[in-house]
This record gives sequence, C-alpha cells and structure tokens, in this order.
Amino acid sequence: MKSVNIPDIAITRLSLYARNLALLDQKGVEMVSSARLADICGVNPAQIRKDLAYFGEFGTRGLGYYVKELLYEIRNILGLEKKWHLALVGVGGLGAALLRDAEFVNHGYIFVGAFEKDPKRIGMRIGDLTVQSFKTMTPLVREKRVELGVIAVSSPWAQEAVDRLVEAGVNGILNFAPVQLQCPHDVHIENVDWGLKLDVLSYKLTAPTSR
Amino acid sequence: MKSVNIPDIAITRLSLYARNLALLDQKGVEMVSSARLADICGVNPAQIRKDLAYFGEFGTRGLGYYVKELLYEIRNILGLEKKWHLALVGVGGLGAALLRDAEFVNHGYIFVGAFEKDPKRIGMRIGDLTVQSFKTMTPLVREKRVELGVIAVSSPWAQEAVDRLVEAGVNGILNFAPVQLQCPHDVHIENVDWGLKLDVLSYKLTAPTSR
Repeated sequence: MKSVNIPDIAITRLSLYARNLALLDQKGVEMVSSARLADICGVNPAQIRKDLAYFGEFGTRGLGYYVKELLYEIRNILGLEKKWHLALVGVGGLGAALLRDAEFVNHGYIFVGAFEKDPKRIGMRIGDLTVQSFKTMTPLVREKRVELGVIAVSSPWAQEAVDRLVEAGVNGILNFAPVQLQCPHDVHIENVDWGLKLDVLSYKLTAPTSR
Repeated sequence: MKSVNIPDIAITRLSLYARNLALLDQKGVEMVSSARLADICGVNPAQIRKDLAYFGEFGTRGLGYYVKELLYEIRNILGLEKKWHLALVGVGGLGAALLRDAEFVNHGYIFVGAFEKDPKRIGMRIGDLTVQSFKTMTPLVREKRVELGVIAVSSPWAQEAVDRLVEAGVNGILNFAPVQLQCPHDVHIENVDWGLKLDVLSYKLTAPTSR
C-alpha cells in the first residue's frame, strides 16, 4: 500500500463502490465497466480510477472490473473482511433504532454492548442485548473487545461518553450528538450530523435560482 | 449576494459556525475573535474568513465578530430566519426517533406530517402527529405546505418516496436510506449515511500506523 495520505472522501467513495458492487454481485453481474459503476455510484469514471489508483492496479483495460474481485479488494482495503465489535452509548429512541437496524450486522458491525445513564432504561432488552449501566462500561468494553463506539447520547453527555470509551481502549467513534468532541490524536471520530445537512437544504431552497 | 458557486462544504461550515455562535450567545458572550471561533468549530481562522467572504464583509479588524450580529447574518444567509415544514416518510424505529427529536423543532424544522405504508403503524400517535397512510401523502403534503421531505424508509422504498414527494412539489429531501436516489435537477437531496462513515473508521483502524 502506498504511504501517501489518502483523503477521507476517497475512502468514503470506496465504501460506496463496495456497496454498489455488492448489489451488482447479488444480481449475478460478473463484469462492470468503470463508466457503468460510476453511473450507479453517481461519480465520474475518472474519479473511480483515481480512487483505486491509491491502492494499486485494478480492472482490465477495455473490459472493466470483475465485480467479485474488485469487491473483495475494496473490502480488504477497508478492513471489512473481519467483524467489528461495537458498543452503543445512549439507548434513547435513536440508540434503540440503531441497535435494531439490520444494516449494521449485515455489514459486519456487531453491537456487543449497550450502555445507559438513565436507570429507567438499564436492564431493557433490545434484540440480543441487555442495556447496561454506563458505570460498568469500561470493564465490559475491554472484556467484549469493543473496537468501535457509537455515541447516541444527548450533546451534554457526549464528551464524557468519548472519554470513557477512549479510557477503555476504543479508538474509533461514530458520533450522533451534534457537538464537537475532543479526543487524542490517535482516536478517530466520524460525526453523523443531519442538522448541518438540513441547513444546507434550507440554504439551497432559500434562493434556488442563484444556486 | 455574489453569484459565484459556493461549495456545499462552505455552507455546512456556516451552519456549524451558527450552531457555535448560538452557544456563545446563550453563555452571554458578546464578541468572539475568528481564532477563538475557529478553535471552537475545529477549523482554521482563515477558513472562517474565506467562508464568510462569499457573502460580504463581517467583523471588525482586531476585535473580531459581534456574536449576535454574525449569528443573525449567517442564519439569514442560510434561510433559518423562517420555520420550515417537514414531512417524514417511514415511521419505523429511526423515523419515530426523528419525530421525537427536539433538535429539529429547536432549529426551526417542524414536522407537519408523517407517512407510512405499513398498516400497523398508520394511525399511531407520535408527539402532535398521527401517522397517515402513504397513499394520502400527495394532497396532504400540498395542503400542509411541506417544503422538506425526510426519508426514513428502507432502501427498496426510498425512490418511490422521493418520487411522491417531488410530485407533491417538495424540492428538498433529507435521505436516511443508504441508497443513491434519482431526482430532477432542481430538487436537492442530502444523504445521511453512517454506513459509509463506519467503513472510514474500519479503514483507519485497520492499519492505523500508516494513516
């Protein structure tokens, strides 16, 4: 693998390519041109070639890509050939919906723990999991070898949730709280923030003719 | 307003600045330097000045920005000085959590309708809303002057949800289904897609030393 710094957006697109390659594979498609794959993914063909070029040479000139092969390669690059252990922090409406969302497990992300501060929710059974007290999180996260934390608490508690996860050795966090979080430089946080996206829509609809 | 094409990412950052200015305002802070605001928002000060420069001149050299004033200006640019009417399509776990999420209404986004295909959910009461049949969506969306659609259905139904919303005159859509959607060029779709973000985390944790 080249040691150049690969932008996050290129990695995000690789994930998108993998998703669409998996759909093609399910339909029994064996080969796909970069033009066709680009069309499905909503990018341009040069972009696909450029993103893949970070990691090597793929595809056959004039023929395109073998779907299964490229899917395997991208999944391998992204680290998706293993199962990831996740812990959820915050089992309110959103958190409970995430725990029940089959998309996680279908893509190899397995919730192995769910934690709450609210005594009313501790002990609740959701899917295969029993909601545990936030106080017991650190040892349980270690014991269950949690690698990724998912934060679905309200904003005022989000930093504490990050701190506890990091303390327990987690260094990848998916954060749903609409707030900037601090973490050590070797911990990665990805924010899911639909408030910002609503504002982009608001902007675009406010003076649509000039946009 | 200048007629240059302003990148979405700059608009996203404006929304982030507004969010943090509102927090400063709540704390009674009257002035903020671009360095301080940049630090809070996790960007660099030059970025803030550049993003704002698309829309005019703001702030006072050597002093910084009046918090209330800049907040008002950005909210105005983003179209947030009005209330937006939203319709939700898909009232499963995630949809129900979104309807109950006070962040929407606190930021001026009001759900005025919620629609479902599943007969078991039609008639359910969530907050002030009664879940309606998807079949009745088009006239109700028009009647309630819905401006933004929020799609929380499973992927196979998402395109139909878009088509119906567009047919009813909605031209801004926040999509939570992990699928590429087609729409006319004057309709804006923003995707909230945490599957892609999980894969970015997976990638970063797979070979952390080289990243």
